[in-house]
Amino acid sequence: MVQFKILQKSGRSRVGKLTTPHGVIDTPNFIPVGTQATVKALSVRDLEEIGVQVVLGNTYHLMLRPGADLIEKFGGLHKFMSWDKPIMTDSGGFQVFSLGVGLESGEGKVLKEVGNEDLVKGQKVRLAKVEEKGVTFQSHLDGSKRFLGPRESIKIQHQLGADLIVAFDDHESSKHTKEEMKRSLELTERWALRSLDAYRRCHSEPKAKNLPRMRDSNNRPLMYGVVHGGTNKELRIRSARFTDENFEAIAIGGIYGKRRDLYQIVDWVVENISEEKIRHLLGIGEVEDLFNGVEKGVDLFDCVAPMRRARNGSLYISPKNSGSVKNSFTLNIRLSKYALDKKPIDHGCLCYTCGNFSRAYLNHLYRANEILFHNLATYHNVYFITNLLKKIREAIGNKQFDKLRGAFCPP
Amino acid sequence: MVQFKILQKSGRSRVGKLTTPHGVIDTPNFIPVGTQATVKALSVRDLEEIGVQVVLGNTYHLMLRPGADLIEKFGGLHKFMSWDKPIMTDSGGFQVFSLGVGLESGEGKVLKEVGNEDLVKGQKVRLAKVEEKGVTFQSHLDGSKRFLGPRESIKIQHQLGADLIVAFDDHESSKHTKEEMKRSLELTERWALRSLDAYRRCHSEPKAKNLPRMRDSNNRPLMYGVVHGGTNKELRIRSARFTDENFEAIAIGGIYGKRRDLYQIVDWVVENISEEKIRHLLGIGEVEDLFNGVEKGVDLFDCVAPMRRARNGSLYISPKNSGSVKNSFTLNIRLSKYALDKKPIDHGCLCYTCGNFSRAYLNHLYRANEILFHNLATYHNVYFITNLLKKIREAIGNKQFDKLRGAFCPP
Repeated sequence: MVQFKILQKSGRSRVGKLTTPHGVIDTPNFIPVGTQATVKALSVRDLEEIGVQVVLGNTYHLMLRPGADLIEKFGGLHKFMSWDKPIMTDSGGFQVFSLGVGLESGEGKVLKEVGNEDLVKGQKVRLAKVEEKGVTFQSHLDGSKRFLGPRESIKIQHQLGADLIVAFDDHESSKHTKEEMKRSLELTERWALRSLDAYRRCHSEPKAKNLPRMRDSNNRPLMYGVVHGGTNKELRIRSARFTDENFEAIAIGGIYGKRRDLYQIVDWVVENISEEKIRHLLGIGEVEDLFNGVEKGVDLFDCVAPMRRARNGSLYISPKNSGSVKNSFTLNIRLSKYALDKKPIDHGCLCYTCGNFSRAYLNHLYRANEILFHNLATYHNVYFITNLLKKIREAIGNKQFDKLRGAFCPP
Repeated sequence: MVQFKILQKSGRSRVGKLTTPHGVIDTPNFIPVGTQATVKALSVRDLEEIGVQVVLGNTYHLMLRPGADLIEKFGGLHKFMSWDKPIMTDSGGFQVFSLGVGLESGEGKVLKEVGNEDLVKGQKVRLAKVEEKGVTFQSHLDGSKRFLGPRESIKIQHQLGADLIVAFDDHESSKHTKEEMKRSLELTERWALRSLDAYRRCHSEPKAKNLPRMRDSNNRPLMYGVVHGGTNKELRIRSARFTDENFEAIAIGGIYGKRRDLYQIVDWVVENISEEKIRHLLGIGEVEDLFNGVEKGVDLFDCVAPMRRARNGSLYISPKNSGSVKNSFTLNIRLSKYALDKKPIDHGCLCYTCGNFSRAYLNHLYRANEILFHNLATYHNVYFITNLLKKIREAIGNKQFDKLRGAFCPP
């Protein structure tokens, strides 16, 4: 069983402890995304050394490669990737959306990320079809026809053996009319109830047809319901209340577009859910958003940004090294001005990379296209964000959150 | 000062200790190549954990990027890459050869390796011109005109601050006539003497024009002369004797082609040099060659093979896991038969990768094109070879070398 306990509060911000079958997650916290059973360019011992407490695997990617059955045969994702701390999986809903409506409207990025781009080059033809029972889609890897619905998503997430799982959800597009958005939300609600049903049957019916092996009740994952509704206040509030009524954990999904909208949405949601439930803001992880999310009462974040930024040479720096909202708290290590710079990325950072290597060396590794660059750069970025959340927790505990936030994001 | 001491002997094989300004190298040993100031896909702490005692940097690559002046400004290659154990550099002779005669004849691989292949696509035009004073060549990175001769090579190797350096040498091609080979060898001999002169002036003339800063005499690197002469017995013997007369350390270079030739060449050389001098077989590192080289009296090897094999999915396995001369002691992790294999790469291997990950997981990482694959695979291969050399040293000490060799390469 997963339990969430709030330990300290300051305004809407809270410090808590989420106890899962694979250990404790201190909140607020950031969950690095490890899409394909690895956080890109980091080993699990890098993650442990950094102090990462939980990683996220993507249901969509893992069901396609290497496959949920295979991972189940290996005793679950923890054993497969040799990570014994908590794991969260997502529902796969966002990825199949990105192959359908998202592909048309340019939202979502599955295909750009990992993809066999030939498959859709210039096509803009939807590769996914949404129906009442779920989504039929074409794999971005080989074009094969696949299906993902509430029952399948919950089954796969149990096969993967995650500690935190997510109910299957439909996604609204910013191109949707209000009527389309409402229809999408209603579908998400029906899928949420069916996800709950599949979850209950996994744990109460020993031989439920087409559902995974029974699990020890002590190992039951926590399932999030996802709040949708786009930027529409009425729909967001309706969805927040529905999710709060039916789930023990609240995820906020379907966030695209402007930062202002994001914060407004979080406010609408937080004001309409129970205080004691854990709150996860899906797919968000920029420094500014972490501060504002925590301030508004969010407990957990996940995002690919720190890792993707690292691979592109965008490395986090703190305010005392000129990091600011304006530069997204990053420097661009590819610039020639760093070729002779003897300083570490972020003076004062205690990570392995900053303790041993200069900006000049990293600039050289990037230019020379060396694999080691990705490891050292990703190590720093994940350390920076993990450590930032640790500082945020301490600051909330010491009633110093506003001060810390002010140092990063002056009013 | 670098000192070599033979501790134990068994036939022509010997166990020794090479003491350098940055620590001891136990011999026989293998030197992983770290072309661009990093052993590809490994961090220096990976190397330390594996037990690697020395790495090799390529003079040609480093002079072009990031440049020897830059590395000197950073206090040398050790500080730049944060590696405090011994470093060897090569002369650059082989790389400039590969841009010239080698480019025409298909020997050498600088361009294939790192290159701006457009530069020479379909051309087969030599990019290097060999003259008495050295080699004028075009950079494979940007096409700029560069020059490398004996004095420049020795200067750069001092700027890099290596513990073991190599006299500048010309390279014969297997396409050469005997007359051409002789001319090439005579040039190598004159360049060897000029390299010695540059070396002496670096260390005895405080302000020698165009030569690098004076170094503490305790930090003097050991300079190898290189034995050339292709597959010609007369030339090889002449070159061995010349090198032995003039250098404290003997490298055997210019080895291409058949395995049989390699062993014959080593015999010719070893029989014509002093026993007490260290012997390095340049660019050789397959398992079979390590055994045969050691048996013939070679002390040190360097090669890109373990790292390159790893990146291609070719992972070392010992005889008890079906490793043999026939499969080059490797399995191909890309094969689908490994997708469900729960075993480690090499059962019995004590490396981090084998201790934590299955063949199935590595197969998945390879197929998913994950950066972590390169790290885990390279870690294993470098561990395997490093540990093999350790076993070889122990076996020589215990008069068990023939037995160990027989287990890998049955007669």
